[in-house]
Parts: sequence; C-alpha cells; structure tokens
Amino acid sequence: MIYSVQVKVMPLKELLDPQGKAVMGGLKNLGIGTVEDVRVGKNITLQINAASPDEAKQIAEEAGKKLLANPVMEYFEININ
Amino acid sequence: MIYSVQVKVMPLKELLDPQGKAVMGGLKNLGIGTVEDVRVGKNITLQINAASPDEAKQIAEEAGKKLLANPVMEYFEININ
Repeated sequence: MIYSVQVKVMPLKELLDPQGKAVMGGLKNLGIGTVEDVRVGKNITLQINAASPDEAKQIAEEAGKKLLANPVMEYFEININ
Repeated sequence: MIYSVQVKVMPLKELLDPQGKAVMGGLKNLGIGTVEDVRVGKNITLQINAASPDEAKQIAEEAGKKLLANPVMEYFEININ
C-alpha cells in the first residue's frame, strides 16, 4: 500500500532563523504586525510503498536521518496521513 | 493570546517538482527504493498574537496570500495547534 508521509524539517529552536526574520519583516511591511515570530523550514511529502504504517514511518525516519535533515541545524518530525 | 499557526506551502500538483525528483534520486542512491514520489515545499510557523483561533487563522490566510505562497506555482494549507 502507498502511504503519504509528511516530513517536517525545521531549524533548531536554539538557532537564529534569518529566513524567518526576513519573512517577519515582509509581513510588517505589508501591515501584518501581529505576527510575533516566524520560522521557515521544509515540508517533504513522501509517497512510500510499505506493508504497514509503521514500516512507512520507519522508512521516513531513515530518509530524514540520512538525507532530508541536517542534524547540526535542523530537526524533523514525521506525520502519516 | 499567542497562537502557533503552521502554513504549509507546496508546489501545485499539476506541476513538476524538480527538487522532489532530486530528493527521490538521492533516496534511491542511499538504498531507500520504496519511495514512489517526493514533493518538497515549505513549512512556515507563525506565532500570531490574536484574540481567537479564527482571527489567527485569518491573519495566516492573509500572510499566505500576500507573501508566503506564489499562487502561480504553489498552494498553501493552514493548521493551528
């Protein structure tokens, strides 16, 4: 069965996120001033062929560790729909 | 109150996603061959100061339309935690 797995890769909370700061500046310039903080990361949708949701999750974990996230700067979370 | 709102910006389904294809190639090279398709988008977390979840959602909608997503190539979805 094909499972759709979302991998969310975000900059570590301890680190500055210059892209997020730039977006926040842009929002302020557009008059959207009630946004207190912005962080920008990646969202990767994987269509995984697996026997069970657990197997799909395991494959996504492996992909996240080996390729999708840089652990020095990023963490990742996995969600299966 | 501060609401944490997730804005997921993804390439339109009708369009090719070269970044996703590149990730799929990378996964195959790593021996993760059960991934059938990959699409790469952005995930933007906004901390919004609003009176209600509905107001926070409305502000995120406005931000998505005006700044975060390019409607020619991308669509966006909003989730409030």
